[in-house]
Amino acid sequence: MSTPARPAPVPFHVYDTTLRDGSQQEGLNLSVNDKLAITALLDELGVHYIEGGWPGANPSDTAYFAAMADGAVPLQNATLTAFGFTRRVGMKAADDPLTAALRDSRAPVACIVAKSHDRHVEQALRTTLRENLAMVADTVSHLRSEGMRVFVDCEHFFDGYRANPTYALEVVHTAAEAGAEVVILCDTNGGMLPPWITEIVGAAGTTGANLGIHCHNDTGCAVANTMAAVDAGAMHVQGTINGYGERTGNADLVTVVANLELKYGWKLLPAGALQEVTRLSHAIAEVTNVPPSARQPYVGLSSFAHKAGLHASAIKVDPNLYQHIDPVEVGNDMRMLVSDMAGRANIQIKGSELGFDLSDRELAARITEKVKEAEAAGYTYESADASFELLLRRELGELPTLFDVHSWRVFTQSHGGGEVDTECIVRLSAKGQEQRVVGEGNGPVNALDHALLNALQPAYPVVDRFELVDYRVRILDQGHGTDATVRVLIQTTNGHKIWTTVGVGQNIIEASWEALSDGYLYGLLHADNPTGGKAAVTVAEAAPSVNPEPAAV
Amino acid sequence: MSTPARPAPVPFHVYDTTLRDGSQQEGLNLSVNDKLAITALLDELGVHYIEGGWPGANPSDTAYFAAMADGAVPLQNATLTAFGFTRRVGMKAADDPLTAALRDSRAPVACIVAKSHDRHVEQALRTTLRENLAMVADTVSHLRSEGMRVFVDCEHFFDGYRANPTYALEVVHTAAEAGAEVVILCDTNGGMLPPWITEIVGAAGTTGANLGIHCHNDTGCAVANTMAAVDAGAMHVQGTINGYGERTGNADLVTVVANLELKYGWKLLPAGALQEVTRLSHAIAEVTNVPPSARQPYVGLSSFAHKAGLHASAIKVDPNLYQHIDPVEVGNDMRMLVSDMAGRANIQIKGSELGFDLSDRELAARITEKVKEAEAAGYTYESADASFELLLRRELGELPTLFDVHSWRVFTQSHGGGEVDTECIVRLSAKGQEQRVVGEGNGPVNALDHALLNALQPAYPVVDRFELVDYRVRILDQGHGTDATVRVLIQTTNGHKIWTTVGVGQNIIEASWEALSDGYLYGLLHADNPTGGKAAVTVAEAAPSVNPEPAAV
Repeated sequence: MSTPARPAPVPFHVYDTTLRDGSQQEGLNLSVNDKLAITALLDELGVHYIEGGWPGANPSDTAYFAAMADGAVPLQNATLTAFGFTRRVGMKAADDPLTAALRDSRAPVACIVAKSHDRHVEQALRTTLRENLAMVADTVSHLRSEGMRVFVDCEHFFDGYRANPTYALEVVHTAAEAGAEVVILCDTNGGMLPPWITEIVGAAGTTGANLGIHCHNDTGCAVANTMAAVDAGAMHVQGTINGYGERTGNADLVTVVANLELKYGWKLLPAGALQEVTRLSHAIAEVTNVPPSARQPYVGLSSFAHKAGLHASAIKVDPNLYQHIDPVEVGNDMRMLVSDMAGRANIQIKGSELGFDLSDRELAARITEKVKEAEAAGYTYESADASFELLLRRELGELPTLFDVHSWRVFTQSHGGGEVDTECIVRLSAKGQEQRVVGEGNGPVNALDHALLNALQPAYPVVDRFELVDYRVRILDQGHGTDATVRVLIQTTNGHKIWTTVGVGQNIIEASWEALSDGYLYGLLHADNPTGGKAAVTVAEAAPSVNPEPAAV
Repeated sequence: MSTPARPAPVPFHVYDTTLRDGSQQEGLNLSVNDKLAITALLDELGVHYIEGGWPGANPSDTAYFAAMADGAVPLQNATLTAFGFTRRVGMKAADDPLTAALRDSRAPVACIVAKSHDRHVEQALRTTLRENLAMVADTVSHLRSEGMRVFVDCEHFFDGYRANPTYALEVVHTAAEAGAEVVILCDTNGGMLPPWITEIVGAAGTTGANLGIHCHNDTGCAVANTMAAVDAGAMHVQGTINGYGERTGNADLVTVVANLELKYGWKLLPAGALQEVTRLSHAIAEVTNVPPSARQPYVGLSSFAHKAGLHASAIKVDPNLYQHIDPVEVGNDMRMLVSDMAGRANIQIKGSELGFDLSDRELAARITEKVKEAEAAGYTYESADASFELLLRRELGELPTLFDVHSWRVFTQSHGGGEVDTECIVRLSAKGQEQRVVGEGNGPVNALDHALLNALQPAYPVVDRFELVDYRVRILDQGHGTDATVRVLIQTTNGHKIWTTVGVGQNIIEASWEALSDGYLYGLLHADNPTGGKAAVTVAEAAPSVNPEPAAV
């Protein structure tokens, strides 16, 4: 670690705008409950400010703030912030309903966005530069008089500074004078590069205001721009978890905070919080329903995965030779990609994680071969530990035959009016009894699931507690039309634990059947110890605290 | 645009290592043919160097270089480079078979990686610092004497400089003295931040060597680190297309080059090449079979997509108010996301793109409502222009009834041995004739496709030329187990054009049926004009030039 430009300023703000700016991402649609679930996770991470939304302008945000004021998510670490505009042109802040909505949100802090680029004032607001300054001063001082703390976002600041530096700085000064605690410089179009940030933040520092930074990733430099602003004097960083946001996204707050804590040695989050960041960033991704990127810095599945000719032994000698940090510091794992390196060593490590002794070299070699064949056929065990355990047990001869499937059939038909029915028949034996059972569902996989449940229930009543909570399909070998291989990942819970199984086939029904039946098999294997089973994770670990439905991590 | 630190150095190298370092990405597996296809696309983009692989060490790379030497892809712009190690400890370069493999590759340039971190020399190579220098000098001068140009990658340079700056600089000096044209400083573990790059590249500059830079994205700063090195004097940038690479990936060469051309005004690629970068980066993604990120700077699908309360009219006044560059400069489009803005204006623009006059305000409003309802139900028209055209035609009453489906049924069954059969029966009328037809397939969707084809063929022989080339499934509302909504996107070609249709349903069969039948309908509507149909793209635009199969873009 090198000495940073300066020690951590006090205070230093980690400000999260996932729920406001992050929610502008194409394809991201958050309900009020989603926002509450994310709020709980953000608070657990320990960010200092959570910008919850835009009350008054956005009805679901108004509802969110009302829920928060009613104690829906009691905050242990973070302070809630409401976002809004400066007052309308020609109106008094005291009369502007949107300004009132900020106060009515009952959030302690208001973050209002002000124009700081002269052309935007003239073309977008269609008013004078002077009136815009009055709007800033009026809104800030009015909200202060209502007892709120106020931050001001200077929209398009960097482009504005280049177009008219005097005016841009005047906006900063006006905001600070009127009582804004922090003035945040926003690279709204995302077109800046770090040296330009350094120069302009330095210039803004001459106003004496506390400065914040808000970057977007249009030049691939959002994180670096944020760091450059911090080096130039900013004491407040804005970003979103996982870099969510419009266009190319906002600065990834996970990366920024990990950089500041691990590279600069600054203690920003509560003690131990950074070690939870991988889990929390993935949990938030589950709520947003945006699959996380495997290559995301620090928390991605691949971020510490080594492929290129490294030996397990060499890494064990000194992981620092090959890694910039110890992944434990962010709650991630170093992974050896099984297919391309000393496979045996890795399988042994993994097997022992799951409670199996694979120290026998021949056995480990045989299992490694099986895994490689399976992966070549499309299976993935990285996310499907329960399937991996079943594979081990099969090879070790430790897999009891709890049920034996003879056949299954699925019928899907449409009727003239667009209605579609699906039925499934499953024939199996369990505990010496044959079952032939029908299941119905709104689709073939749903019907298979119900039929299998009905067929197993007489011999194993415990399956009534099993519930499918997640189902993901991936077409492998895309570009082969409808002839491609299909991979399905299923997550099942028994109310205590969640486990993942994988299925692969030439069609989705075949692949789903495999994942489904292995899911039931794993659950039954561990039925006597519902909180055990090392290949499963606890529901409490997996679910955000506000959401009553067990969510998959 | 601001004045950069200095004008473009001459020469300045854009060096692509997609095929070597990029191929280390988890999940990325390139065949020799894949590499040749990518080579053609890289050459079309106009990068200066293509690092094709590691001949001798990697058998498929040896085959790749042999194919290139035989003229498989005649290079118009790029120079081919072969990657390798310094000679083995204690051996002469002239006797080392891997060194010979570099020469035998017949590439004009060798890029050899040398240890420059003292601890790696001692622990990984298990030799002395002096011997390592001899390995560098010997290998470089030997390859020069064999007529090759030589570049040297200094592995772990930045960590090595911090541990032992004198030694690290000595490696640089030794390489340059022995005849290396460029010495590339590699942040192999990816842990650097831009100010540290600036400092260390500046120090390396005192050796007088031509310097290059090679960064990874472990701190989210690969692009910024690369730019910082350029500002500090580097004249050679290494990266991969779309940032492929191990762990968090290499510096995204697309972003780096776009930044240097558009922000610094440097002309690096051939004239007009940057405007092809969106198409080429997506075409390369098709070959790697890694879905591109919508948020990728410059070339992502969402990179210029606007959602947050902007009006089409405002952007038309001055796109520069809201965009850091004109997307045309990189071959991308500005997109208005239909659901959240002045919907009517956007629908009119889109309709007219497809050849429909929607200037009637009431009509446009009605269609906008239909689109919003459909999108709320899970449809997406952003990628499915053919479905969008069908929607417009339905509303405009311009959709002829080419066939009328009465019913369809799908039967999937397993047999004891694991075999799975699927059959489908379709009943429809076309041109006054009723058809009841059976289709078989390796899965339900495949069977539906064959049945529909068989049913339409008597009335419309042209369907024989239709072929499904891509099929993608997405489970919406994940977390609802097998009850979720399913969305399917299908791409169909008639050999001249490719078009995309979307289907949504409670199960995959229903969703697939809709996308399939709309795919056939669109194709039949335009059957008399197989190269027309504005909602379709030409096969030539979609396919990379070496790959004979029409690939979906």
